[in-house]
Amino acid sequence: MRYELYYWPRIQGRGEFVRLALEDAGADYTDVAREPGGMDVMMELLCSRTSPKPPFAPPFLRAGRQLIGQTALILDYLGRHHGLAPDSESGRIWALQLQLTIADFVVEIHDTHHPVGAGFYYEEQRAEAAKRSRYFLDQRLPKFLGWFEQVIEDNPAASGCAVGRRVTHVDLSLFQIVEGLRYAFPRAMTRREPQLPRLLALRERVARRPGIAAYLSSPRRIPFDEAGIFRRYPELDRFEA
Amino acid sequence: MRYELYYWPRIQGRGEFVRLALEDAGADYTDVAREPGGMDVMMELLCSRTSPKPPFAPPFLRAGRQLIGQTALILDYLGRHHGLAPDSESGRIWALQLQLTIADFVVEIHDTHHPVGAGFYYEEQRAEAAKRSRYFLDQRLPKFLGWFEQVIEDNPAASGCAVGRRVTHVDLSLFQIVEGLRYAFPRAMTRREPQLPRLLALRERVARRPGIAAYLSSPRRIPFDEAGIFRRYPELDRFEA
Repeated sequence: MRYELYYWPRIQGRGEFVRLALEDAGADYTDVAREPGGMDVMMELLCSRTSPKPPFAPPFLRAGRQLIGQTALILDYLGRHHGLAPDSESGRIWALQLQLTIADFVVEIHDTHHPVGAGFYYEEQRAEAAKRSRYFLDQRLPKFLGWFEQVIEDNPAASGCAVGRRVTHVDLSLFQIVEGLRYAFPRAMTRREPQLPRLLALRERVARRPGIAAYLSSPRRIPFDEAGIFRRYPELDRFEA
Repeated sequence: MRYELYYWPRIQGRGEFVRLALEDAGADYTDVAREPGGMDVMMELLCSRTSPKPPFAPPFLRAGRQLIGQTALILDYLGRHHGLAPDSESGRIWALQLQLTIADFVVEIHDTHHPVGAGFYYEEQRAEAAKRSRYFLDQRLPKFLGWFEQVIEDNPAASGCAVGRRVTHVDLSLFQIVEGLRYAFPRAMTRREPQLPRLLALRERVARRPGIAAYLSSPRRIPFDEAGIFRRYPELDRFEA
């Protein structure tokens, strides 16, 4: 089956978590909005009232007759069909729970530069962004990253992965989180990384996987920039602790 | 099986979406942190490194040997075990997708009064909150509510519910969304409601369900106040359109 991924064509954004899973799995897919005329197709679909009904927002995935929205749910689906999710029901629920916690983290990362709302430019909310980023770097980033470090440490399988014995969609997403935070907050991450040995080892391991390594060195990998979730504004990379 | 719900004892918050499902289902449950000494039990569990590992944050549910975090995932679980989810796999995924879209909406509702971060009091971010609320009421509230109105309208089963022929956890959560928004933004909702006939009819229908009606008139239902997600700050209930 050929999947169709629908996401904004010029940014990594939330779609990147899905791209990483598709690429790692070697899945056959079209990144629709990056094809000629594809953006029109996506916008038409988003506004349509067909059945199955299109999701509230990108990313979404067409898998046969299904149209699946919400990043975590897409990853749960791809995980189950491509050996990137635990086999047991309880393992699968735990993986999805971790993926949803990553989604919460992503909202907070995004909101460091857009606390007043995505409808305003960053330049219109620089003061608020500085305040929110300081709080984020002092309180939230250590809490989230420390918790994921513990998740890996406390995994009963002691595999170095977040869940079970094998790499899952959760590990691929944690790779992207580390990459993105290193891009956006290099000072804060340099300070924090010595406390995250397991998360960083996992990041290395994911980067070496054949599908991921090939993808990262291909033109399909869009570089980080100041239009996505992870943005490098040096004035926001300031913290107390 | 007796469930254990873990959530902050004095607010509705995200836990309320779970309480509504448990009450509608007539499930046997303890709201642990509302029992004497229960708050200590919850905090100890949150900081513990037992297996299964506790979630990142409340609410979470103990169901036998499972510990499930993330509101949407708890509702998917309860839905499947208490006739509050569609029977088909694709229906269940759609319901979970809708529930995750509600979760996204809840983040935006919360952030109207806390745009700079949950670590600061509202009084410390009133100016930013006014800016964000205006944007929320003009752009985001109509977009989310209009989309859910369409979901009900486009449901192929034409049942008046969001998914399939029967009431699901999604409908219970949409009830709470309407209740909360009416509390927090009465002016904006009065203006918007004529365009939401299906959503309001669904709200009435849910309110009349025996489990819900009994719960709402019981002391177990915590009133809305200015400590939860939906807060009434009249200065934020201002909009253009």
